[in-house]
Amino acid sequence: MDTILLKGKPVRDAVFAELKVKVAQAPRKPGLAVVLVGDDPASAVYVSHKEKGCEEVGFHHVTHRLPADTPEGNVLDLVGQLNADPAIDGILVQLPMPRKINQEKVLGAVDPAKDVDGFHPVNLGLLVAGNPRFVPCTPKGILRLLSYYDISMAGKNVAVVGRSVIVGRPLSLLLSLKREDANATVTMCHSGTRDLAAITSAADVVIAAIGVPRALGTNEIGKGAVVVDVGINRIDAPERPKGTRLVGDVDADALKGHVAALTPVPGGVGPMTIAMLLENTWEAMAGKEGLDENG
Amino acid sequence: MDTILLKGKPVRDAVFAELKVKVAQAPRKPGLAVVLVGDDPASAVYVSHKEKGCEEVGFHHVTHRLPADTPEGNVLDLVGQLNADPAIDGILVQLPMPRKINQEKVLGAVDPAKDVDGFHPVNLGLLVAGNPRFVPCTPKGILRLLSYYDISMAGKNVAVVGRSVIVGRPLSLLLSLKREDANATVTMCHSGTRDLAAITSAADVVIAAIGVPRALGTNEIGKGAVVVDVGINRIDAPERPKGTRLVGDVDADALKGHVAALTPVPGGVGPMTIAMLLENTWEAMAGKEGLDENG
Repeated sequence: MDTILLKGKPVRDAVFAELKVKVAQAPRKPGLAVVLVGDDPASAVYVSHKEKGCEEVGFHHVTHRLPADTPEGNVLDLVGQLNADPAIDGILVQLPMPRKINQEKVLGAVDPAKDVDGFHPVNLGLLVAGNPRFVPCTPKGILRLLSYYDISMAGKNVAVVGRSVIVGRPLSLLLSLKREDANATVTMCHSGTRDLAAITSAADVVIAAIGVPRALGTNEIGKGAVVVDVGINRIDAPERPKGTRLVGDVDADALKGHVAALTPVPGGVGPMTIAMLLENTWEAMAGKEGLDENG
Repeated sequence: MDTILLKGKPVRDAVFAELKVKVAQAPRKPGLAVVLVGDDPASAVYVSHKEKGCEEVGFHHVTHRLPADTPEGNVLDLVGQLNADPAIDGILVQLPMPRKINQEKVLGAVDPAKDVDGFHPVNLGLLVAGNPRFVPCTPKGILRLLSYYDISMAGKNVAVVGRSVIVGRPLSLLLSLKREDANATVTMCHSGTRDLAAITSAADVVIAAIGVPRALGTNEIGKGAVVVDVGINRIDAPERPKGTRLVGDVDADALKGHVAALTPVPGGVGPMTIAMLLENTWEAMAGKEGLDENG
């Protein structure tokens, strides 16, 4: 079986191109503020990707880099200033935050109308209610990627593996909504699942978001399935110049030829997340300025 | 196979008894306000049950009955007054509201700290985030009922049938949380599910919340399963003095002897919903007064 690689880049490029056109016609630039506390190297890389994305589509952007020992009160004060700043449409609090800071408190302090990451309880709740406003970027990006490749979810049995609040739980909610790009029957699998392989191997679509390198292979995933790999894990690779390489949560080498379609790591879901962040920021501005959805 | 009937009344009675003791020792009575717009006969019955429950446990309660043609603005004004009223700890907006009123707008206007029904987006969102405050009463009541009868959900495959925001969606979230009374693997089934019987007949636990009389029987539910029936449907029954009777969403007569346990209709989940409403109202007051969870 030929396995189609569901590459994120062409979809990301299409989203970026559309945003560029809209921004050129808009009364002002959408503005994104990123709050980065501490010096987690992976977070620094993600933030720089977000900055580059903003540059590319012509957004106003500002990154607030705070030392790891910043008191929680100062982070909350900054979020309050950004909430009040009319040039800022979207606020992104880069996770994880240092342990001393109550992450939920900070996320809850972001104005829900500027919560372009979709992690504020109000926005998660609107998703439960079937009336989503800002949808978390990775779940939204996965649906967009599948739509782009004309892979319908309607009526499909989907196993979502991993119940994080960033991916698994909102994605399960989104996929089970009664709307054109969803309407799937979702089984939410996790560390407490009794016989994971029995569930995933029977599913039409498997979405892996567990953060364990190459955990799912041909024993866990059925022939002809569609596989979305959300994991980004760095493993040792002595044969590579750097000595490491990135792999996902599924064993892509084993699955090629076995499944119908697969998102590569890197280059699958990853580029979608930033594209959706920028799209959400555009929508935040369009909502505030009373523009219709096409700008 | 002997089928155990999971009756709600003993569980409800235990919850009521505990609340009575707490109220007797509390600095003041918890207060519940019910907002009932229009003259839906089923809603009137539910509201009278809630009033009786408040009387029984010694809560302060007040019901605001408004005519069906009340303008939305007046309903929102009333909610605002109740939000500000220090004697009111919980506010329940009886659903459904008349069509002219934007139900989501009214639910969203309730102070989340008084939202004892758990339908405000903030409270639904906290459930997604795995940090629930007020959990919707029927899902919470189902978990309590199962715990009372020592039926563990951990590691079980659960099919939740029906994706309403009142039952199916919050219940799916709740059951898949990593906590002692949950940690199940949940499949969220709905009208778009391709082969419903294949999924439900393989499940350890089937929870029916679709509002279709006796829709699931021995073809849809496996031998020895646990069945939670959330439906309350009135059907013709010429043999009864009233000419009608209440049935659930499963065919209870057919399932007796086939399944391990079953919630009866009426008398199963129904009594739990009111018990959890009163418990949520107690918790709202205890939170406000700084009492610990035992009062």
